[in-house]
Amino acid sequence: MLDKILLKLERDKIETALRAEVAALDPIISPLAAHIFDAGGKRLRPLLAVTCAKAFGYTADNIYPLACSVELLHAATLLHDDILDGAKTRRGQAASHTIFGTDTAILSGDVMLATTMLILARYNDIAFINSVAEAAAKTAAGEVKEIQNMRNPELSYADYLDIITGKTAWLARCSCEIGALLAAATPQQREAVAGYGLNLGIAFQIVDDALDLAPESETGKPTGGDLREGKMTPPLFFYLESLDEKDKKEFKQKFANSSLDETELNKIIAAMHDQGCISRTRKMADEHLQKAQNFLSELPENKYKNILLQLTHYVQQRNH
Amino acid sequence: MLDKILLKLERDKIETALRAEVAALDPIISPLAAHIFDAGGKRLRPLLAVTCAKAFGYTADNIYPLACSVELLHAATLLHDDILDGAKTRRGQAASHTIFGTDTAILSGDVMLATTMLILARYNDIAFINSVAEAAAKTAAGEVKEIQNMRNPELSYADYLDIITGKTAWLARCSCEIGALLAAATPQQREAVAGYGLNLGIAFQIVDDALDLAPESETGKPTGGDLREGKMTPPLFFYLESLDEKDKKEFKQKFANSSLDETELNKIIAAMHDQGCISRTRKMADEHLQKAQNFLSELPENKYKNILLQLTHYVQQRNH
Repeated sequence: MLDKILLKLERDKIETALRAEVAALDPIISPLAAHIFDAGGKRLRPLLAVTCAKAFGYTADNIYPLACSVELLHAATLLHDDILDGAKTRRGQAASHTIFGTDTAILSGDVMLATTMLILARYNDIAFINSVAEAAAKTAAGEVKEIQNMRNPELSYADYLDIITGKTAWLARCSCEIGALLAAATPQQREAVAGYGLNLGIAFQIVDDALDLAPESETGKPTGGDLREGKMTPPLFFYLESLDEKDKKEFKQKFANSSLDETELNKIIAAMHDQGCISRTRKMADEHLQKAQNFLSELPENKYKNILLQLTHYVQQRNH
Repeated sequence: MLDKILLKLERDKIETALRAEVAALDPIISPLAAHIFDAGGKRLRPLLAVTCAKAFGYTADNIYPLACSVELLHAATLLHDDILDGAKTRRGQAASHTIFGTDTAILSGDVMLATTMLILARYNDIAFINSVAEAAAKTAAGEVKEIQNMRNPELSYADYLDIITGKTAWLARCSCEIGALLAAATPQQREAVAGYGLNLGIAFQIVDDALDLAPESETGKPTGGDLREGKMTPPLFFYLESLDEKDKKEFKQKFANSSLDETELNKIIAAMHDQGCISRTRKMADEHLQKAQNFLSELPENKYKNILLQLTHYVQQRNH
């Protein structure tokens, strides 16, 4: 209960700092940025940065703008993602590019990326730039790798992990790392929260890939979107394992050609549920969450460490 | 003559450093980056950085990767520009997004922007980050402002200057500034080369806007592209001055509605030539080049200062 109050308090401070950064943007960009942040969001990444800094005893309020830098970067990547996906909505609101135009949305993403760096530069430590710019490069490169492997049934599990580490986990890792850097944690402690963030991020994405197969009534998203789109995710890896060579070959061909019809898709989704592909996927996420928890042993005992622990439970239990 | 040999030498060193940075990119990105840089280019921005550093007596070879950071940023903005414009070619080669796909091109631009910061971070001085991230933000914001003012006949000349300062001149300014920063020039000297770069960049764009009205046989581009697209540029400001109130009102209406027909467009272009709108535009560029030259008085006399001076002549005399 206390943790919920604490989380609310931190989220409010993050929100205030975020609004201040949006207001300081070039007026030509700020309406679009305000639209993005008005749509809400869990602010998980800034929360990681704040919690990691405080777990190491940091108390000054200048953690909040620093924490917002990663949310700004995250928003920039979502902005570009929605254009790539041709998404019409984001968090229940009209996607920015549908209101402000694709051109303005692409360029505003660039401004937000640059602004992320300008916020970090205020802290006068090049380590922040290295951490966040590396995360920005890995996030975008991970997405490129994902796009280039759409409808590639030969994608290995190692490649899948590489893709999600880039597109999702690295920014979570970086968020934890900058918190520890600001708190002047030891290199060992910094590595620990980085390892925590990386595994939390990997687990988050794996759970996301499991939820893709859940009923639309639970998630609000069409069931099997990844499968239809041609993404290789853990449930599909497990499903493939269950097929004999002939069926596997046929599936791979149809998956590659995008020629699976609705009946076949529904049959596959049902089989994934029946054969435990979803629960096996959840178990894989659990393994990464266990790793994340193990990394926390390097942290001193306090309420912030407790929040980091609870975040692993939150990811584990996510059902929408 | 000596200067030409010097320029060739510097360009070769820039090219070598640029290739090393491209080779160090994530392999998923580097083919696209290689395609961009294979198409050539004058490498004006890195040349400004190198020349400004050397003008203040800097001699170490680590100037070249630093100089390449702004070329990488420039390439990232061109990559996104070509998508916005739906351009099919760039420097006579197929535009990257037509070969690698729009999604990969958008994301590769993001990786290149992040990589720009990682290169700068190697120099362990936050001033480089501030200078280049500010330029990145201003470049993109300037483009947004330009897009949002397409077919706006009420755009003021001050707004036009603001747009081109953002989209073109700021990165030239920044290129000069980082050279001076690396050379540990005095703040006064740094301001001088920044002022030089800014005015050189403004003049470059104004000349570009004048060349838009030159015959296609000279420039290789269709005459009056900006006018057709709905951009307000200096020749058009001067043309508008020459109209009486009735004709001005009619022109503005048609310009805003995109309803000028080919005959009218050709008549306007001919009138711009006849009434000296092009030469008046060139004169405005000359004023900025004069300002740029004045700033050079703060620099010690040497062959590098001489190159900076010659660059103002190059911009003045550009005819394609």
